Amino acid sequence: MKAAVYYGPNKVEIDDVAEPEPAPGTVKLKVGFNGICGTDLHEYYAGPIFVPTAPHPLTGQQLPLTIGHEFSGTITAVGDGVTGWAEGDRVAVEPIYKCDHCAPCRAGNYNVCQHIGFHGLMSDGGMAEYTVVPTSMLHKLPDSVSLELGALVEPMSVAYHAATLGDVNPGGTAMVFGAGPIGIGLWFALRGKGLDDVFVVEPTATRRAAIEALGAKTLDPTALDVVAFIAEHTGGDGADAVFDAAGVTPAVATALACVGSRKPMVSVAIYEKPLETPLLNLVMNESRIQGSLCYTGADFEAVIALMADGAYDTSGWVAKIPIDDVVDEGFEALHAGEKMKVLVDPNGES
Amino acid sequence: MKAAVYYGPNKVEIDDVAEPEPAPGTVKLKVGFNGICGTDLHEYYAGPIFVPTAPHPLTGQQLPLTIGHEFSGTITAVGDGVTGWAEGDRVAVEPIYKCDHCAPCRAGNYNVCQHIGFHGLMSDGGMAEYTVVPTSMLHKLPDSVSLELGALVEPMSVAYHAATLGDVNPGGTAMVFGAGPIGIGLWFALRGKGLDDVFVVEPTATRRAAIEALGAKTLDPTALDVVAFIAEHTGGDGADAVFDAAGVTPAVATALACVGSRKPMVSVAIYEKPLETPLLNLVMNESRIQGSLCYTGADFEAVIALMADGAYDTSGWVAKIPIDDVVDEGFEALHAGEKMKVLVDPNGES
Repeated sequence: MKAAVYYGPNKVEIDDVAEPEPAPGTVKLKVGFNGICGTDLHEYYAGPIFVPTAPHPLTGQQLPLTIGHEFSGTITAVGDGVTGWAEGDRVAVEPIYKCDHCAPCRAGNYNVCQHIGFHGLMSDGGMAEYTVVPTSMLHKLPDSVSLELGALVEPMSVAYHAATLGDVNPGGTAMVFGAGPIGIGLWFALRGKGLDDVFVVEPTATRRAAIEALGAKTLDPTALDVVAFIAEHTGGDGADAVFDAAGVTPAVATALACVGSRKPMVSVAIYEKPLETPLLNLVMNESRIQGSLCYTGADFEAVIALMADGAYDTSGWVAKIPIDDVVDEGFEALHAGEKMKVLVDPNGES
Repeated sequence: MKAAVYYGPNKVEIDDVAEPEPAPGTVKLKVGFNGICGTDLHEYYAGPIFVPTAPHPLTGQQLPLTIGHEFSGTITAVGDGVTGWAEGDRVAVEPIYKCDHCAPCRAGNYNVCQHIGFHGLMSDGGMAEYTVVPTSMLHKLPDSVSLELGALVEPMSVAYHAATLGDVNPGGTAMVFGAGPIGIGLWFALRGKGLDDVFVVEPTATRRAAIEALGAKTLDPTALDVVAFIAEHTGGDGADAVFDAAGVTPAVATALACVGSRKPMVSVAIYEKPLETPLLNLVMNESRIQGSLCYTGADFEAVIALMADGAYDTSGWVAKIPIDDVVDEGFEALHAGEKMKVLVDPNGES
């Protein structure tokens, strides 16, 4: 079968590899779509970062391996001992391997497991015609949720998890900094939680246009005093939650100048280095910066339910490509900003 | 009467001013002691910062004015309509003027009132023989709590409030960065909350020695890999709460490398400018930075109760001086690091 194999920086090849077969407790999936994540870009241009160069303690795998951790699929075979799942079931995959014994795992927060692994970073993943995963990773897709949306459940769950940590009520005012895929996911998640008053702050005109077309209110920080606007809009109280999905100094500075007393800025960005951060803002109104990482199963279920309700729309920001084009039309196009989100179709059925 | 009057940068004079008399709803206090705060130092060397140069909306006062917002005293007269307070009552003063109508005030968090004022920064304060305050600011001192300790209730409440925001249980591990007066107050507060496992991280030998003499465990970050030590000490889980009372880049970086998953770094420092902050640490384990400002009445009451139980000790870190020496033996000595905490005795009775 065809698989996108990661060998190290600037080297992903479409190889012909053996089809995996399901071990006990696992299922074999025919992959529907597999999204390319910012993490995959980091691996491609600056890796290996998460991909292990020695056998990973939870998976035993190491470089080179098939990448891809954002995927949907259809079960084509089940391993010994598997109950509750059958050939033909359509699923989204929650790709976390966890240790189950560290303090976060014991507290139910396995998204911050101290030994966390990801299917498609620490093991052969979803950017292939087939992949095999343990049943613990499966979330069933209702008939009304397409395999295309199914491949977006993972990144949308990253955003939904962050939205939940924002702890904001439907009547509140929220701000999202950055209109990349996670920013878009935050907007969908906050809308799905009942918020009407959400502003997306994004300096790039094409990204503003894309999220405006979905219905979002945007603010252009190159043309508007965002802090003054929010102060006036909220009667001086500040925003009830702000979300940093941009990861750059001006976004953080503006976000912390907008957040209200005792309210959070949720960080759901990969900061490549320490940023100049106005910590005094946190002290002066007892606001906080709350980190957000990944998701747990509850986030997957919430996103799938919202998708079934029609709350997500891929128009204008999601592109589909065949697996053979993954480097040029995937990594390179994303890196150049020519596309926002790319779903790879390993089986050529879209 | 004698009063320490602040005129602007590098100008505090001991003037002979009129004794204030109590208006309705206020009491006249003979000041026991008045502490010099870091905020006062900022006003002296770089102000006016908080001291208003136009009439303050809540107090109507402006520069020049009598400084001093950390003080204890004995009631010598009560204004019309005052009930429940009498001549001879010994009190600590919670020096906050609040607006009562902004969103934080409505939520009970008047410590982050949008129009906050302080007695002794926005009005004539406690560094004088007498001062007049509204009864809403009074907290009664039990007989077992001296006027010396009473003047420390305010800074110790700043620390106690931060300790509470640390949300740490008696069995947990806490770290305090910086062994100045607020760091010492954090140590007392955490011990008062039942924690045994508290480490104070402080690079200055004299400050380490002072807090060690009170019974604290200290870590010298110039001689020890603090991050590795805490990782080993906690079995890899990290600290349950860390407190930044230092306000400098190395302390913040180390603190965020030590804090456990989903646990807080509480910031109770005045950051003079934005710091290089490793926000990625927050994301990777969903930890947070929580700002902490001042206190409310509950903190005052908790500190006074702990003082009555003998939980606070001024040995080795608190000096008392007469009001005439406030510049040389107060501001200058604190600025030079020759003293840690100075209580001014305006009435020459100590």
